[in-house]
Amino acid sequence: MGLDGDDTLWHNETRFQLTQTALRDLLRRHVPEADVETHLAEVEMRNLRLYGYGVKAFTLSMLETAIQVTGGRIPTADLEVILGWGKKMLGEPTELLEGVEAALRQVGRNHELLLITKGDLFDQESKLARSGLAELFSGVEVLSEKNVEAYRAVLRRRHIEPQEFVMVGNSLRSDVVPVVEIGARAVHIPYVMTWHHEHVDDAALPRDGWYRLAAIAELSALLGSLDQTSALGA
Amino acid sequence: MGLDGDDTLWHNETRFQLTQTALRDLLRRHVPEADVETHLAEVEMRNLRLYGYGVKAFTLSMLETAIQVTGGRIPTADLEVILGWGKKMLGEPTELLEGVEAALRQVGRNHELLLITKGDLFDQESKLARSGLAELFSGVEVLSEKNVEAYRAVLRRRHIEPQEFVMVGNSLRSDVVPVVEIGARAVHIPYVMTWHHEHVDDAALPRDGWYRLAAIAELSALLGSLDQTSALGA
Repeated sequence: MGLDGDDTLWHNETRFQLTQTALRDLLRRHVPEADVETHLAEVEMRNLRLYGYGVKAFTLSMLETAIQVTGGRIPTADLEVILGWGKKMLGEPTELLEGVEAALRQVGRNHELLLITKGDLFDQESKLARSGLAELFSGVEVLSEKNVEAYRAVLRRRHIEPQEFVMVGNSLRSDVVPVVEIGARAVHIPYVMTWHHEHVDDAALPRDGWYRLAAIAELSALLGSLDQTSALGA
Repeated sequence: MGLDGDDTLWHNETRFQLTQTALRDLLRRHVPEADVETHLAEVEMRNLRLYGYGVKAFTLSMLETAIQVTGGRIPTADLEVILGWGKKMLGEPTELLEGVEAALRQVGRNHELLLITKGDLFDQESKLARSGLAELFSGVEVLSEKNVEAYRAVLRRRHIEPQEFVMVGNSLRSDVVPVVEIGARAVHIPYVMTWHHEHVDDAALPRDGWYRLAAIAELSALLGSLDQTSALGA
């Protein structure tokens, strides 16, 4: 069984949002009318092809946004503040979502657990180490993008058949759609907020092959009912 | 067989050095006496625990160095130039070392090839894609650190016995010492320059279990002679 990390096991987007709000407040001191959120989102999307995901990419895009939005008038002291936000995000303790550890211990009894995340390799491994959950996982896969090819490669490498694989995560785009497409099943556990980049239109959602839970505490019961109707080993 | 990427298959350190020289020249316009190299090296080492390796980490450390060395007097236009250098490094074509493609095609006939690099996941996958070598590899492992535990985990995951594994790379610290320590063999192919962080004292080198070649073109012949004396499958 695969589990996403960010916003499935531990808080992530909340931190990005908090930092983004701090950036807006900082830049508005120099340019009161600036639409910082929109500008930052554009810079991030433009840089995605070069930077990929993660806090370092986010920090570089914040710096670029800060210089552009202020027309270069931002003091370097403020840019140092932004650099410091990035470091703070990278160094913060991993804050688990409610019920995660108990749920993992429960499902870990009958299923092999793989952490399957995307983002920055170094940052993700560091987060897992700080989470205290590492010993519950038999493997970790940090992917640069969670698409059909990437999931196929993981299952091939680990000798797992799609029909025995279940992926659990908060993102329809990354944890549900490609997983159902390769013939595996997915469990969607929404987080309180979704990054705009991860949004999926309802029309693009698969009709079946996936389930939605309100909280990870319900995972064990769902898997139990699935196991009774089919062979779900991984 | 495992092969390192940076400075083993394609040029890497040369680019970092060129950018570093450009940073020195840029900062000396503001602070003529500044010891930029030493300051940058210190900032990089201090940030390693948070940032890990790679171009994004390097760019963030360059920005921090630029602000500190100039006492905050660097114009934001210059900081934008530094941001641009990072993007340029990430987007440049992958420049293969001489003889790499022919050598890989030759050894690939009798050995399964794994790319085993460290650094930034997204950047490394992108470099491999741009190298034109991807189809020659049966797998890619981007590690956050190349140490004994990381190599053991790769071999376990891929069902490879240490005694049938050979690692090829330019770094004694990352590609030779930990590989010999787990009972596998290593081939050292030095690059024209070594990042200070990768330096190993001669006294710390293993006495045997590794070989040194002047160029990757000699790899096939070396492996041939090894294969005759032992079972080298992977």
